[in-house]
Amino acid sequence: MPVPTDPAARRTYELDRAHVFHSWSAQAALDPLVITRAEGCYVWDGHGRRLLDLSSQLVNTNIGHQHPKVVAAIKAQADVLCTVAPQHANDQRGEAARLIAERTPGELDRIFFTNGGAEAVEYAVRMARLHTGRYKVLSQYRSYHGGTSTAINLTGDPRRWPNDYGSAGTVHFFGPFLYRTAFHASTEEEERDRALEHLEQLIAFEGPGTIAAIVLETIPGTAGIMVPPPGYLAGVREICDRHGIVLVADETMAGFGRTGRWFAVEHEGVVPDLLTFAKGVTSGYVPLGGVAISPHVAATFAERPFPGGLTYSGHPLACATAVATITAMAEEGIVENAARVGEDVLGPGLRALAERHPVIGEVRGRGVFWALELVTDRATKEPLAPYGGTSPAMKELTAALLDAGVLSFSNFHRLHVVPPCTISPAEVEEGLAALDEALSIADKHTTAA
Amino acid sequence: MPVPTDPAARRTYELDRAHVFHSWSAQAALDPLVITRAEGCYVWDGHGRRLLDLSSQLVNTNIGHQHPKVVAAIKAQADVLCTVAPQHANDQRGEAARLIAERTPGELDRIFFTNGGAEAVEYAVRMARLHTGRYKVLSQYRSYHGGTSTAINLTGDPRRWPNDYGSAGTVHFFGPFLYRTAFHASTEEEERDRALEHLEQLIAFEGPGTIAAIVLETIPGTAGIMVPPPGYLAGVREICDRHGIVLVADETMAGFGRTGRWFAVEHEGVVPDLLTFAKGVTSGYVPLGGVAISPHVAATFAERPFPGGLTYSGHPLACATAVATITAMAEEGIVENAARVGEDVLGPGLRALAERHPVIGEVRGRGVFWALELVTDRATKEPLAPYGGTSPAMKELTAALLDAGVLSFSNFHRLHVVPPCTISPAEVEEGLAALDEALSIADKHTTAA
Ligand SMILES: Cc1ncc(COP(=O)(O)O)c(C=O)c1O
Ligand SMILES: Cc1ncc(COP(=O)(O)O)c(C=O)c1O
Repeated sequence: MPVPTDPAARRTYELDRAHVFHSWSAQAALDPLVITRAEGCYVWDGHGRRLLDLSSQLVNTNIGHQHPKVVAAIKAQADVLCTVAPQHANDQRGEAARLIAERTPGELDRIFFTNGGAEAVEYAVRMARLHTGRYKVLSQYRSYHGGTSTAINLTGDPRRWPNDYGSAGTVHFFGPFLYRTAFHASTEEEERDRALEHLEQLIAFEGPGTIAAIVLETIPGTAGIMVPPPGYLAGVREICDRHGIVLVADETMAGFGRTGRWFAVEHEGVVPDLLTFAKGVTSGYVPLGGVAISPHVAATFAERPFPGGLTYSGHPLACATAVATITAMAEEGIVENAARVGEDVLGPGLRALAERHPVIGEVRGRGVFWALELVTDRATKEPLAPYGGTSPAMKELTAALLDAGVLSFSNFHRLHVVPPCTISPAEVEEGLAALDEALSIADKHTTAA
Repeated sequence: MPVPTDPAARRTYELDRAHVFHSWSAQAALDPLVITRAEGCYVWDGHGRRLLDLSSQLVNTNIGHQHPKVVAAIKAQADVLCTVAPQHANDQRGEAARLIAERTPGELDRIFFTNGGAEAVEYAVRMARLHTGRYKVLSQYRSYHGGTSTAINLTGDPRRWPNDYGSAGTVHFFGPFLYRTAFHASTEEEERDRALEHLEQLIAFEGPGTIAAIVLETIPGTAGIMVPPPGYLAGVREICDRHGIVLVADETMAGFGRTGRWFAVEHEGVVPDLLTFAKGVTSGYVPLGGVAISPHVAATFAERPFPGGLTYSGHPLACATAVATITAMAEEGIVENAARVGEDVLGPGLRALAERHPVIGEVRGRGVFWALELVTDRATKEPLAPYGGTSPAMKELTAALLDAGVLSFSNFHRLHVVPPCTISPAEVEEGLAALDEALSIADKHTTAA
């Protein structure tokens, strides 16, 4: 893309290239988009273009950009008290914990606050290890759990590879994913049963008494939004119970409305022992994450110190942001909007696109959490980009979307359609029209072309 | 302490006890202090008491509480743009990176942003490992580097113990600390030379070609504010150069004015390869941390992706807070104030206390970064609380300080005097008077009593 000509945007671009080291990237070839402002489902770039944000940035602005009630709450709390050390008590911290505990399923009623999702996973695993006295942790291939040591080693995508020194105590298993089944299954039920059998076998061979926790994304997000077949999570819960394994549901991406429920576990009526969250809890307006803790795990640390912490645990400004975010979501029916839009407009709209575009191999999702599996051939399911990489076709597609006024989220050969939970049917239609146009270009890379 | 009677403070206390899971603590016996507001060097508790904050919370409010320019900047940025994904460019992110790069020593001119100090250390170590192709990392006993897996395993205090599964690739060494010398030294020069010799020997036996990095706090903070003897850091730098080891200076606590310089490495004229920061960069008003990166380490990731990241890397609201914090510190001479107050009032005042109070074994520090080593016997140096624990005497002391209107920071047998960098001479005198009173009580636990 050309560097912005507007002097302020140009300076932003140049400062970025001179001084900002970017995550998950080779630094030399970066060409970042300058973002200057945002509102609701839109952002504005350094060229003055308004873009429909179908990415929710990193799938975190569940409440949309610059929600006036949340902005007002940040400003009000900034005037009162920005920061307080974790050992003290503070009204916003307590209130945020209460509002979250009220929404997490079952008896998950104590909250350990972190700055983000990776730290939440780190500390959930630590709690599980000390609670069980076991070390090994199981997680899924096709998953993302964060960038810090334990979190990245639990992760089941190629970002783990350069971080894997073979010593993190993590073991990976396959979750259910019928479209690319690891179990030669042909129905969702078969996939579910075989995935559970696989997990059960893997546990038997790893040694049930060595396993502290199973960590999984309730609906794996970055790895492809694979909604598990009904009964799978309940099956995992049962396996955990049988072996005394702590079940950690990582709802960093799926939580706080994204799937049309406060938490995705609700769809299955399953209560994990620990639930990790971040992103949607404040929509990222101020960094916040955390672990919701069941009474039996909390009890382990009643008399014995919990050996973990961070300077900003329960940060007042972040917690005030969570209070305002949750309150506004409840008052304005934003979770319900995500459910309704997903069911009535976005889901059907994406399925209709699949009928017209041979490049779409599968449409998956729920709420405002959707993935398009893009393939060069529907029969062979050959992905439009290799695992862990990208391709000219994928680059063309995201560039075409940008030209059509859409900020998109893509990963390998997939396009994720993950707008704010506040998106209106009209905005969805706008997005679908842009997708329709851009996918026509991608269709040319298929064997059908 | 009695639960606050004020209804709002009481509710805060009760919500905390019901729903907040606290760091580094056994949960059952907690009795947190409710903090309701703060300004400059003071906080107000749930009983309506005004307390002089000699803790800077967790040694992070370098600019004092609720600095009007920083609060105004948070509010202004909240109105414009709270959050943007890390892959984009944003004006506040670029400007914060520029202002930090301008202040970090030498050619450290690229900034990778995190949410806090632990993540900064995690990613600095990752950079060092991939830059060198080596795995092992050396760090000091008597250190703290954060709570996540790698950071806590680098840590040299008892909080590491329950997190040490023997597989983190970390090896600990002793730093210089004449008061409790590990080297049977009797002068600072001897301590320095022997500490360097110890490090050199340890490297020889670990295998120089296996060591990716040495991570050290420029001045170890939580572990006791041991100012290294002149020449020690230069010696470590030279050892690193000789063996191709990356030197990581962790300035999470010592950076951003605390020692009377922007960074503590400046006192020694040493330039590390990577410098980690957090806390003071925003005074904790919004969570932010990061790694300042030298050109040769950055070059490793020019064509090869850096395998690390987080949703909130370079968070606009956090970066705007950093811009305002750094600008206000520069405009108002806050770093210079810390240096002057330390030299003229706080240092001399603490040394004067040591002459009157037999419980003080040693006074150490620089700027607004001071530790009192408390002992039951000056000759034997028997600490006032055991390593990793507390004692009735220490509890009495901190309670007495609270009664005298001071919020203090203690660790094991030490009292740290770490007020905001903005503290005035009059406020220092107020703190010294309270310390004088409280230390008289502690004196009773010495053999001199
Ligand atoms: C499921 C899941 N867990 C953890 C994380 C890590 O969160 P953070 O980037 O805030 O550390 C993410 C981020 O995308 C995520 O999607
Ligand atoms: C030297 C040092 N490094 C790292 C950390 C960890 O920082 P955080 O608590 O922000 O993760 C601290 C916190 O006290 C610290 O003092």
